[in-house]
Amino acid sequence: MANALARLARINVGEPARIIPSGDFGLIGLAVMGQNLIMNAADHGFTVVAFNRTVAKVDRFLNNEAKGMSIVGAHSIEEFVQKLKKPRRMMMLVMAGKPVDDFIETLLGAGVEKGDIIIDGGNSHFPDTNRRTKYLAGKGIRFVGTGVSGGEEGARYGPSIMPGGNEEAWPYVKDVLQSISAKSDGEACCQWVGDEGAGHYVKMVHNGIEYGDMQLISEAYDIMKRGIGLSNKEMGDVFAKWNKGVLDSFLIEITRDIMYYNDDDGTPLLEKILDSAGQKGTGKWTAINALDLGMPVTLIGEAVFARCLSSLKAERGRASQKLAGPTPKFEGNKEEALANLEQALYASKIISYAQGFMLIQNAAKEYSWKLNKPEIALMWRGGCIIRSVFLKDITAAFRKNPDLENLLFDDFFNDAIHKAQSGWRDTVSKGALWGIPTPAFSTALSFYDGYRTKDLPANLLQAQRDYFGAHTFRIKPEFASEKYPEGKDNHVNWTGRGGNVSASTYTA
Amino acid sequence: MANALARLARINVGEPARIIPSGDFGLIGLAVMGQNLIMNAADHGFTVVAFNRTVAKVDRFLNNEAKGMSIVGAHSIEEFVQKLKKPRRMMMLVMAGKPVDDFIETLLGAGVEKGDIIIDGGNSHFPDTNRRTKYLAGKGIRFVGTGVSGGEEGARYGPSIMPGGNEEAWPYVKDVLQSISAKSDGEACCQWVGDEGAGHYVKMVHNGIEYGDMQLISEAYDIMKRGIGLSNKEMGDVFAKWNKGVLDSFLIEITRDIMYYNDDDGTPLLEKILDSAGQKGTGKWTAINALDLGMPVTLIGEAVFARCLSSLKAERGRASQKLAGPTPKFEGNKEEALANLEQALYASKIISYAQGFMLIQNAAKEYSWKLNKPEIALMWRGGCIIRSVFLKDITAAFRKNPDLENLLFDDFFNDAIHKAQSGWRDTVSKGALWGIPTPAFSTALSFYDGYRTKDLPANLLQAQRDYFGAHTFRIKPEFASEKYPEGKDNHVNWTGRGGNVSASTYTA
Repeated sequence: MANALARLARINVGEPARIIPSGDFGLIGLAVMGQNLIMNAADHGFTVVAFNRTVAKVDRFLNNEAKGMSIVGAHSIEEFVQKLKKPRRMMMLVMAGKPVDDFIETLLGAGVEKGDIIIDGGNSHFPDTNRRTKYLAGKGIRFVGTGVSGGEEGARYGPSIMPGGNEEAWPYVKDVLQSISAKSDGEACCQWVGDEGAGHYVKMVHNGIEYGDMQLISEAYDIMKRGIGLSNKEMGDVFAKWNKGVLDSFLIEITRDIMYYNDDDGTPLLEKILDSAGQKGTGKWTAINALDLGMPVTLIGEAVFARCLSSLKAERGRASQKLAGPTPKFEGNKEEALANLEQALYASKIISYAQGFMLIQNAAKEYSWKLNKPEIALMWRGGCIIRSVFLKDITAAFRKNPDLENLLFDDFFNDAIHKAQSGWRDTVSKGALWGIPTPAFSTALSFYDGYRTKDLPANLLQAQRDYFGAHTFRIKPEFASEKYPEGKDNHVNWTGRGGNVSASTYTA
Repeated sequence: MANALARLARINVGEPARIIPSGDFGLIGLAVMGQNLIMNAADHGFTVVAFNRTVAKVDRFLNNEAKGMSIVGAHSIEEFVQKLKKPRRMMMLVMAGKPVDDFIETLLGAGVEKGDIIIDGGNSHFPDTNRRTKYLAGKGIRFVGTGVSGGEEGARYGPSIMPGGNEEAWPYVKDVLQSISAKSDGEACCQWVGDEGAGHYVKMVHNGIEYGDMQLISEAYDIMKRGIGLSNKEMGDVFAKWNKGVLDSFLIEITRDIMYYNDDDGTPLLEKILDSAGQKGTGKWTAINALDLGMPVTLIGEAVFARCLSSLKAERGRASQKLAGPTPKFEGNKEEALANLEQALYASKIISYAQGFMLIQNAAKEYSWKLNKPEIALMWRGGCIIRSVFLKDITAAFRKNPDLENLLFDDFFNDAIHKAQSGWRDTVSKGALWGIPTPAFSTALSFYDGYRTKDLPANLLQAQRDYFGAHTFRIKPEFASEKYPEGKDNHVNWTGRGGNVSASTYTA
């Protein structure tokens, strides 16, 4: 390898010699995730070719972080392609959207050949990945769209990787991707997800769930701070304790660290950070997809909306002058309130994952993808932002019964949510009385109570719609009669005034 | 006019004579809304030409409901066009989507001329109306996309009409549309909304709000039925009482009627109706648009998701066997609980409309539409499904201050929500403890509490994102320092382990 590097080094100083391909794996895009993935792959014995559109970044990287590693630079896209062994394995970590299409075209014009593999490791929207997989298959190029989660640390030492696309590519990329991925109990957190955009779809839902988890933790923080009146040090201790129980997870762990982290003046840095969060991405896509598929993924929906509300910082400042509420005054047993809060967080999290898997299950039907639920949970168990002990239990639930209709029907989670519910109800009810917003805790509880309700009040919606728009209604099977047969659209003239024409083509 | 009718009648029996155009207004699509709008226009002195793709419907309509009115039939689209005076005013009430495009093409091929006006009165998605307005303007045809709300009754005796599109058309259609529209205190509930898809946009939000109102009433019904333990007759009495107070509205009124309506066996029909509601339409579009524009329109979001959940009827049946919860046992003062519930419904409704107008306000900016908020509220005051006393107060608020930033800042609503909040909090907290789902009441309260909170826990989200993905954070202005300047992206190495490269192009 030293020889190969020396040869390549000479090329970089301008020698127009024939390039002998030495690269096992190429990566385009040298932001933090890209750099770390390259070093990760180099650690695992691969010679990696690095390229970036702003070429100066390539040299800076080679002369610093990448020094002494099996990493070679390319100063043009042609050089990048020439330096890779065939079939070429080329991964892009660039901004989702047009840049991905642009780089694909650039690669196609730079010597990429039939049988080569292009991997998009960014956060592309799954319909784009559907399209690109087909487009490139038509040119004999195998396209892989893969989710990568784990932040900087994950990328460097083992992220969760969720590849989908053209399955022909899998045997060629499996070794690299599984080598660099996280491991959980010896299993790689990287498995083939499914056709076309399935990998990016599962990553999208992962990110939606991440939004949910973060929102739940934020609500717990708010309740502790404003409701129970804890200091950041005390909250750090609570998160440290929770991190040893059922909530043991990366996000709880880092929240502990954040609570303890002080600025130079000795006060918590957290309290100085602007409370305005963006939401233009995968979380939003998950909520929109849930609406499109008609699945009640309410917790992610509320988490996205909570970010929207947070971003109206100036307006909230004005509102805080004009809108009053109760002043929480905590007078109970702190330990008990914290135990209830832990249960609220745990139960809400169970709901969020149950909703996420309901969505995935439905998407598999809708898009005709064969998805492997235990392996999805496995992929999320290590490396990624939502990694947790909890996902081990989900993997176990789906391994025990791959046809499990709902996570809440699994004995373990069924038992857990029953035990958690009194603390959960207490927390939601306290939040309402204290004036502390708990959109995610509340919607999770409403979902639980709605889901377990055989007869919801939606019968009234149907009666109203039939009343004002002649939209018809159906009858509950147990009340079917000659007048109102089961499975038929019935219309009633509720007032005696309306006509008898039903709204066959008009929906008010 | 009798002569004209006689002449036209002759054409119907096959005479190939030159048609003398007598129609003031044409309407395509003879489902319930179309038929009723035609009769409504005829009542106001217009001669209306009626057409339907299934031609038999035309004759059935002419020989029944339309008999003796100034309504003439057309048995082909060419005949329809020929029977109209110029510039022709042709309204379609057909299924949104492809049928609208198809009828436009059919009309273009059937003799429609420059200057003629095509009105789409269905529930089209506003981007389609944007596109159609431009497309037809290019051919010299003026296109109007208008929301029409009011169900059968409204269509027959005066609906709310929300026209937008090519403003050149307005002087030509104003008379017909305002004549047939509802009136509120002498003002027509039909005003020009704005360019292109603005009319359909406002109708879409109207429908979203309608979803919200219906969901709120359903939750109140559920609390009364399962929480407080009222009979349908008693609930009818409560709705009757509410209909005399701040909640006075069409939907409360019809809910009263529905509560009182018994099946032949003397038991309430409502309780026999299947509790499974659809949601494939404008409610969903509103929620998706809110997500796209980043506006926290949470109540409509929850209302749509509640319908999704209701539609999982069979799965809920199974869940009801496996998931337990508390059994509500009411032991307090019923009158007080009902007064609290009324306040919960009122306060949540204020939030829903505040959110709706936040969305409209933002859309006007985003799409560069000039929208008139008082007139929008006016249009919703009469004729349509959400008509209410409440909308009079909203009109007043925006007339007093057209630049009102938020409905909650208006003195009337500010006062109202402050008075309502203790009952509201009580209801939400009881719902949580009783195990009765209140997704819309709860999300409204969480929104209120979040909106009036200067410092939300979103600072933690930002700290987490910076911790795991180097996404940077901003500092609260009051804590700006040399180290963390205001308005700059700051990154902290929270663990001492990560690198110092920020995530410029990658979002985990």
